[in-house]
Amino acid sequence: MSNWFEKHQATFSKALDACDKRYSWTAYTESPSSKIHGKEIPAAGKARFEAMLNQDYPLQQPGEVGRTGAETSPYTQQPLGITYPKVATDILFEHIKTAMPAWRDAGTETRIGICLEMLDRCSQQLFENAHATMHTAGQSYIMAFAGSGANALDRGLEALVYAYKAMQDVPDSADWERTFGADGAAKLQKRYKLMPRGVSVNICCATFPLWNGYPAMCASLATGNPVVFKPHPSAILPVALVVSVCREVLAEAGFDPNLVTMVADTREEPATMALLEHPDTAIIDFTGSPTFGNWIENNCRNALVYTETAGCNSVVIESTDNFAGMCKAIAHSLCQASAQMCTSVQNIHIPAEGIIADGKHISFDDVAKGLVNAVENHLADPKNAAFLCGTLVSNDIYQSIERLRSEGHERGKILRDSGPYDNPGFPNARTATPLMIAVTQSESDLYREELFGPISFLIKGDSAENCLDAAIRDARERGAITSHVYSVDQDFLETAQDAYNNAGASVACNLIGMPINFAAAYSDYHVTGLNPAGNACLTDLAFVASRFRIVQRKIMVN
Amino acid sequence: MSNWFEKHQATFSKALDACDKRYSWTAYTESPSSKIHGKEIPAAGKARFEAMLNQDYPLQQPGEVGRTGAETSPYTQQPLGITYPKVATDILFEHIKTAMPAWRDAGTETRIGICLEMLDRCSQQLFENAHATMHTAGQSYIMAFAGSGANALDRGLEALVYAYKAMQDVPDSADWERTFGADGAAKLQKRYKLMPRGVSVNICCATFPLWNGYPAMCASLATGNPVVFKPHPSAILPVALVVSVCREVLAEAGFDPNLVTMVADTREEPATMALLEHPDTAIIDFTGSPTFGNWIENNCRNALVYTETAGCNSVVIESTDNFAGMCKAIAHSLCQASAQMCTSVQNIHIPAEGIIADGKHISFDDVAKGLVNAVENHLADPKNAAFLCGTLVSNDIYQSIERLRSEGHERGKILRDSGPYDNPGFPNARTATPLMIAVTQSESDLYREELFGPISFLIKGDSAENCLDAAIRDARERGAITSHVYSVDQDFLETAQDAYNNAGASVACNLIGMPINFAAAYSDYHVTGLNPAGNACLTDLAFVASRFRIVQRKIMVN
Repeated sequence: MSNWFEKHQATFSKALDACDKRYSWTAYTESPSSKIHGKEIPAAGKARFEAMLNQDYPLQQPGEVGRTGAETSPYTQQPLGITYPKVATDILFEHIKTAMPAWRDAGTETRIGICLEMLDRCSQQLFENAHATMHTAGQSYIMAFAGSGANALDRGLEALVYAYKAMQDVPDSADWERTFGADGAAKLQKRYKLMPRGVSVNICCATFPLWNGYPAMCASLATGNPVVFKPHPSAILPVALVVSVCREVLAEAGFDPNLVTMVADTREEPATMALLEHPDTAIIDFTGSPTFGNWIENNCRNALVYTETAGCNSVVIESTDNFAGMCKAIAHSLCQASAQMCTSVQNIHIPAEGIIADGKHISFDDVAKGLVNAVENHLADPKNAAFLCGTLVSNDIYQSIERLRSEGHERGKILRDSGPYDNPGFPNARTATPLMIAVTQSESDLYREELFGPISFLIKGDSAENCLDAAIRDARERGAITSHVYSVDQDFLETAQDAYNNAGASVACNLIGMPINFAAAYSDYHVTGLNPAGNACLTDLAFVASRFRIVQRKIMVN
Repeated sequence: MSNWFEKHQATFSKALDACDKRYSWTAYTESPSSKIHGKEIPAAGKARFEAMLNQDYPLQQPGEVGRTGAETSPYTQQPLGITYPKVATDILFEHIKTAMPAWRDAGTETRIGICLEMLDRCSQQLFENAHATMHTAGQSYIMAFAGSGANALDRGLEALVYAYKAMQDVPDSADWERTFGADGAAKLQKRYKLMPRGVSVNICCATFPLWNGYPAMCASLATGNPVVFKPHPSAILPVALVVSVCREVLAEAGFDPNLVTMVADTREEPATMALLEHPDTAIIDFTGSPTFGNWIENNCRNALVYTETAGCNSVVIESTDNFAGMCKAIAHSLCQASAQMCTSVQNIHIPAEGIIADGKHISFDDVAKGLVNAVENHLADPKNAAFLCGTLVSNDIYQSIERLRSEGHERGKILRDSGPYDNPGFPNARTATPLMIAVTQSESDLYREELFGPISFLIKGDSAENCLDAAIRDARERGAITSHVYSVDQDFLETAQDAYNNAGASVACNLIGMPINFAAAYSDYHVTGLNPAGNACLTDLAFVASRFRIVQRKIMVN
């Protein structure tokens, strides 16, 4: 086995430094542009993806009792035709348990080195994975390459940093000596050993399968725990590609590839509960719906549970000195990935009396018009619309849009209706542009839950303070992953930031000229764990420190 | 407010270093000897304790709705006659919530400095607390001063070290800059803030009320969480004394003293469930019985739960080159604190064919005789017996002894019967010397649970390997906090250490010439959390890293 820890030392050192100082950095290439990669590499990746269609995915795992999988491309609305092993959990777990001792005993640097190599090889597989992510999760090509690719890999590396720091805190050994009473000095040699918890189940979501997939895998593997991926039934392939890489790296390093496995399923025949309830499951990482996440938090008592779910992300607009920039930034969030991101804005709170924009008073309706126009601008060019919006991961979202359109008509005002956009190259793509609804706070039952997809509310408040209060209450009670405030009033900004933070939510102020959905690895603590949108920040010491325990042995050497 | 962080900087730096290198160190004076302290200080401490008897304990807390408390001295078997506030939980919690924001905002160094001052002042109160511990927990004076005093304070300091390290890992702020597309550089100023979880309930045990009391308090307070102590109904006073010190220090520092409070109760009118089930309870630290600890782990879903309970601590004797020293060391554990320590040995596994001791074969009966004689030697001098054994915390232990004596007669052999010893100075002391029972492994139902008090088993195994297997199985399935092996065979030692560690238990080999029950702060990781004897090591990063969360604010500075 190569010394991969040494091979990746420079990258890892830089990641350690970035986590300490939290500046902007990425270890992986974010752009799929042929200016960087040439033409051949991207084309080869696409070809590899296409060769997988309508085939049995080549994953040799123990406990295969049939084939499963029913993915459909949101771009073509055709089945991918790929099958995956259907797994007997008990048999799989028996093999995983056999694999554990060698991994447990491998030591911190060996395990981290292997994880670094896994991430590196996954970074060389981003083209086929981007196509896989497009045709399952529905992301645009560029988003699939960056957000679900490079940026997600960065999160994996970040988790390795924290796992390393937590494990490095425990020394290997110590000499200990003291005298008790008249018996002379007692000398002990002590050795401390890190012990994993057990099988780690990594439940990935449909829209960004690897965003938390990489960090959860890295956190568990690095600390000695085998990982069973449970992809969402509609987005198996991007996960399968990673599992294949990991198994290849493990085997090459002389370890049992069953340290990383995958249990795929379909909506009709789900496999998740068998994994959650297995007595050997010691760690559960879950990304997905608040309902299921909450159920796991409350019911899976025998495992450590880490969740990222969703909330009602809000914007409070008090004032701005760059109205056009603000509208463009917010509209970007409403469009990006068809608002299927955990950081997408849903609830935009605007004072009924309007705001001061660029030094002038403008009405609520003016603000609304500005936001609608900014959305139209983002969508004007079909190529840009396609890049920005991608497709809808599921037909269910059309039902939500329909329901909210009807509710919006009745209880508020449809400011902008949702409709399909023409995706160049994919005439059958499942698309929808933003549905924007104006309501008052008395319709809060409509918006005080995550409405997955391009549905947003412009919520009229009595005043800026009232807008803030409402947004804060929703963050505390219904969860928030991102929250935004636009204001030129320093006092209001200070109040708002304190209020969000004290409600257990992070907050971003006056973001323009950048995608406001962007969460920066090595810099942003992505989920607070203090509100209903999840219990874990996936990249901090708390995410890793309990994944291993410490046992010791001491021997008298007098 | 003084800068207590600065004042205690030298001590704290040394503690940080000791935790890193894990050598022997104590920050506090372990001996109550008048050679060190003079005569006046110890006498004044005793006088302060005596002045508290038959009085209302002066603790001014909100929500007092009456008085409670029914402690009885195990030394005199007379009521202490001290009453404590009986508290309406809801009212108390309202006041605690008021106290929280200022503490949350105080920052790491201020909070750690205050905790360091609390520990320092508690160290100046060890004499009265030692008497309080004697007359509630039943410990001997010296044990109460050292084990429940200085050594427990060390654990508090140790928890502060880990809390500090975990909090220091999060920087206060960062400058972040990157370019997205054509929009130019986006510059963000980011600030990160540590947020506490909420009210931390600290449930202390009867025999060593402060052993985990200090570290749990320090871990929660340092990370911003208010602490409600819930002492065991039979050992309230040692906890009350600490609570008074902490409240005094908090008030002096300008903080609300309700950041540290106490809810006392009686066996007849317990108050624990109201604390556990309070919706504002966010953290539970529990020390006590495996049954209740396990119930809390499984049922208190809305709080982080850290437990230390108990197991069946074992010794496996394979061979020794110092038979007398080994017997003395094991016998010490059987006697010390009447085997009411979490580290007390209960199950001594000895091969049926005997062992090689000092180069010669000796029989099972010879080993048994050696252990019984060593116990007699420890007890021969009444003063030493009193120092070593202390008293029984509760009359219940007599019932256990009676039951096991009868079971032992029927199903094995009583090698040494338990009886009272004469405690010099306390003719009514509730005392019991070790009951030692020889059994075979077929009576394992007798010894595969913690029998609290001076009850031990000499268990005949088919071979040394068989002894080891049985002890390992018990550690895995029934829990273990300490495990001992005596052997001169390097292969056996290696096998045994691996086996214990892989079963999730720590192990000590060939300890003689020291109290084998001793757990060293800054050096031993005391509980593994991998077997049923508790889920937490109270002094590692995992114990502190989840007690706070991180929220952030970022603002655009372009």
